[in-house]
Amino acid sequence: MSKSKLKDTIIYNRTTHPERTNATFERIEEVFFNVLGDNIKKEMKALQTQLGISSPRALLTEKQAERIVSFVDNQGFDPNVIDALIDQLHASEISTAEAIDIHKQYKIPVSHLEQDIVPVKGHGCWIMDTKGNWYLDMDSNYSATNLGMSNEEIAQGLYNQAKTLISMKEDRVQIARTRFLKEISSMMPEGLHYFYWQNSGGEAVDKAIKIAKAYTKSKDVISFKQGFHGRTHGAVAVTWEEDYKKPFSLDNEDWVHFANFNDIKSVKRLVKKTGAKIIILELVQGEEAGNRAADPAFVNDLWQFAKENNIVIIDDEVQAGFGRTALKKGDWFACMSYDVVPDIMTIGKSFGGGYPVTAVVTTKQISDAMKPGYDGSTFGGNPMAMTAALIANRQMKEKDITGNVVARAQELREGLENLKNKYPIIEEITGRGLMIAFSVGSKENVEKLVEQLHKQGVKTSLSTGKYIRFLPPTIISKGEVTEFLKRLDASLQHV
Amino acid sequence: MSKSKLKDTIIYNRTTHPERTNATFERIEEVFFNVLGDNIKKEMKALQTQLGISSPRALLTEKQAERIVSFVDNQGFDPNVIDALIDQLHASEISTAEAIDIHKQYKIPVSHLEQDIVPVKGHGCWIMDTKGNWYLDMDSNYSATNLGMSNEEIAQGLYNQAKTLISMKEDRVQIARTRFLKEISSMMPEGLHYFYWQNSGGEAVDKAIKIAKAYTKSKDVISFKQGFHGRTHGAVAVTWEEDYKKPFSLDNEDWVHFANFNDIKSVKRLVKKTGAKIIILELVQGEEAGNRAADPAFVNDLWQFAKENNIVIIDDEVQAGFGRTALKKGDWFACMSYDVVPDIMTIGKSFGGGYPVTAVVTTKQISDAMKPGYDGSTFGGNPMAMTAALIANRQMKEKDITGNVVARAQELREGLENLKNKYPIIEEITGRGLMIAFSVGSKENVEKLVEQLHKQGVKTSLSTGKYIRFLPPTIISKGEVTEFLKRLDASLQHV
Repeated sequence: MSKSKLKDTIIYNRTTHPERTNATFERIEEVFFNVLGDNIKKEMKALQTQLGISSPRALLTEKQAERIVSFVDNQGFDPNVIDALIDQLHASEISTAEAIDIHKQYKIPVSHLEQDIVPVKGHGCWIMDTKGNWYLDMDSNYSATNLGMSNEEIAQGLYNQAKTLISMKEDRVQIARTRFLKEISSMMPEGLHYFYWQNSGGEAVDKAIKIAKAYTKSKDVISFKQGFHGRTHGAVAVTWEEDYKKPFSLDNEDWVHFANFNDIKSVKRLVKKTGAKIIILELVQGEEAGNRAADPAFVNDLWQFAKENNIVIIDDEVQAGFGRTALKKGDWFACMSYDVVPDIMTIGKSFGGGYPVTAVVTTKQISDAMKPGYDGSTFGGNPMAMTAALIANRQMKEKDITGNVVARAQELREGLENLKNKYPIIEEITGRGLMIAFSVGSKENVEKLVEQLHKQGVKTSLSTGKYIRFLPPTIISKGEVTEFLKRLDASLQHV
Repeated sequence: MSKSKLKDTIIYNRTTHPERTNATFERIEEVFFNVLGDNIKKEMKALQTQLGISSPRALLTEKQAERIVSFVDNQGFDPNVIDALIDQLHASEISTAEAIDIHKQYKIPVSHLEQDIVPVKGHGCWIMDTKGNWYLDMDSNYSATNLGMSNEEIAQGLYNQAKTLISMKEDRVQIARTRFLKEISSMMPEGLHYFYWQNSGGEAVDKAIKIAKAYTKSKDVISFKQGFHGRTHGAVAVTWEEDYKKPFSLDNEDWVHFANFNDIKSVKRLVKKTGAKIIILELVQGEEAGNRAADPAFVNDLWQFAKENNIVIIDDEVQAGFGRTALKKGDWFACMSYDVVPDIMTIGKSFGGGYPVTAVVTTKQISDAMKPGYDGSTFGGNPMAMTAALIANRQMKEKDITGNVVARAQELREGLENLKNKYPIIEEITGRGLMIAFSVGSKENVEKLVEQLHKQGVKTSLSTGKYIRFLPPTIISKGEVTEFLKRLDASLQHV
């Protein structure tokens, strides 16, 4: 056994691991139980007494760590047992129970606290939790970690950048952003070459609306039922779900009007009634709609109608973009597979390979409506964000993400169709590319299925209503799609 | 000469520097001129011809790089000349002119493009630009890089975290956030222990207002003239400056009412008129007000009035927090030096040592008003953000930032008072702690002084009206304050 390796997972080395603390005895105990089961219970009790530990969440001392190392040494464990102990302790020095308690103690409960899996490390499409179990990730953090949960190259790039120049305001010329801009332009829809940098998707939508308002010199916006665009005052106002707005008196904004998705007549009626000059939509509705793609005919009609009436279209591609919904190689954004170019586009999530970076992208003409002082950002397009985005976008091109999505989506869709024939509980299959969902009749059935999938080692996405949604990392392999379908099959047998 | 070291700055090594590209000839030429002056002009022209370069912004090839190395080898330069060449090329492989052109080509002009300094690397309170010049940073990116422009420990922590688990949604329990929460609680004002994580200051303010609305079941908000709170729909609505709102039809929001700063009667009048249950303020007004601190008597009256009338106070500490405005050791937030505790506080900028991370912090009672589904965030409180925040906050405590601010602020204030006696152009000195400003009569005088300070190697903060503002990194040393005052003195002689 490498004693120093084990000790390094207990006593925090500030130079090599400034992100850690010392381990707690509660975590040591948990890891031993994870790896060796309850057999070791008596020995652990004795060890605790020997170490004189009354508070199992206190940070261990150097001396205590040495005694734990001796204890392990004396047990005569297999090398693979010791490796597993080191691996799990390295991944977390804090116990599952403490992590959950601390979150409960400090969280403003704006969302349900997810505690079924406490993730500690990722590898490609897989996530390991505090128990040492691995899960196939079918969520990608709502499409934010499409290149996987960990990334050596982005890590290295961010390390170099943080050692050099860790931040710089949006308004100042800098090198990291220059590098990125030289690289990205080939991925953008034609004519959309002007960027305003933000940090979250909701913020990008909020600013896209501001830009559209400034350009059209108007404030009315047409949005769509079941659409989701984010949570700031501006973004949530154009989001459909009333529960997201009512507590904040944002459910009756006089400048927002909701049309029926895939219904051009409804759009025309609203435009006539309100004189609105701005439309915002997701080409593939995610969150609230269970991954519903717009009809191509509707998209064509909408674009034509907008053109005829000088209406600005904001295409919110925060979730659908960067290849997730590709129908053919090179479809980096959903609009490309619909063969339309919006006036304004919001991009995010996948953009920085997991780093918070988003943007509003638009044409020269619309860009010119913005004047110095109209907006401003401390962190937007900072050198770290641009470094992450540069490396992530290079990787997306090299890994032929759009090609992969096309192939994997076909396999996934076929597999789901087969399961639909086998299990009548599957009603409708929706979505586009690797933004896919199916309905199972009720919210209760969704919950049951999510639970079964969890048992099978599959991490699903946040599901809404009777739809269960899947947004796997866009790097997912053929073998992983097969594995997912196998596990889904096994799960459906129990629902 | 280390030939390989020079070549490494020209040809991009993907493994060690995935954030780079190959250098351009334009940059090579710029660096030679920076270091050797125009003397080398003829030789560079000859070198360009020899390399067959017609497009100076094309990426250099391996062969071209080798010839450049040979060229340097043959010139018989001093070792310090070669070191300077390597140092500058290492910092940027792209020329100043190209960086500026690319920014112009792609930027939505929401803000004035700052191009007087193109920063490439930082060291403590100093920034080096593409020309190889060093500037004393008196801005800290509006207080976002208070620990300096580069940070080895944060770099290492982010490297480890990105290799392990690069992101995780706000709603899920995770280890990096647990570590942070165990560390931060000692810095927070009493009773403010509930967090909701965001990415930008404006976003945090936007969400703080939502939380206050949900808790009070009301929507009217009293804000203050000259206040600045950010740029999202919600944040800009409570910001005073009309130019920031009018282009977006956000200048007449019926739920926002502006009181006079430092005028309790004005607040009482507005509350009586509107029945508002929410007040938002900066205890030290930054941006628009030239760093104006609230009167302690006003703050006392305001808190008492709010208490008597069940009004929720949102204290926006995005810029003033984390010791910047400390009056005594341990004043981590402005409210602490005023000896009051707000109901809701927004924190940001300095929080992550340069990483985009912000938060809303509140009491248990207010926190309880939020229910699952009320909000949600993809990137809020992600493991990278929490890692940066953990390390930054540890460093702040260890470096005794509040103690340093108290000492340095006194020296700075005394130095400015002396200069005020010497130069009648200095009218009023405003601010608190290291958030300081003075007025020089007119916007034109500010511009002249900024230009002189630039020549003296001082980077100032964005200034407003007749005030010139200074927000040095909170790690600034006694010697650096002295150096700044010396350079300011020299600058004032020419205004």
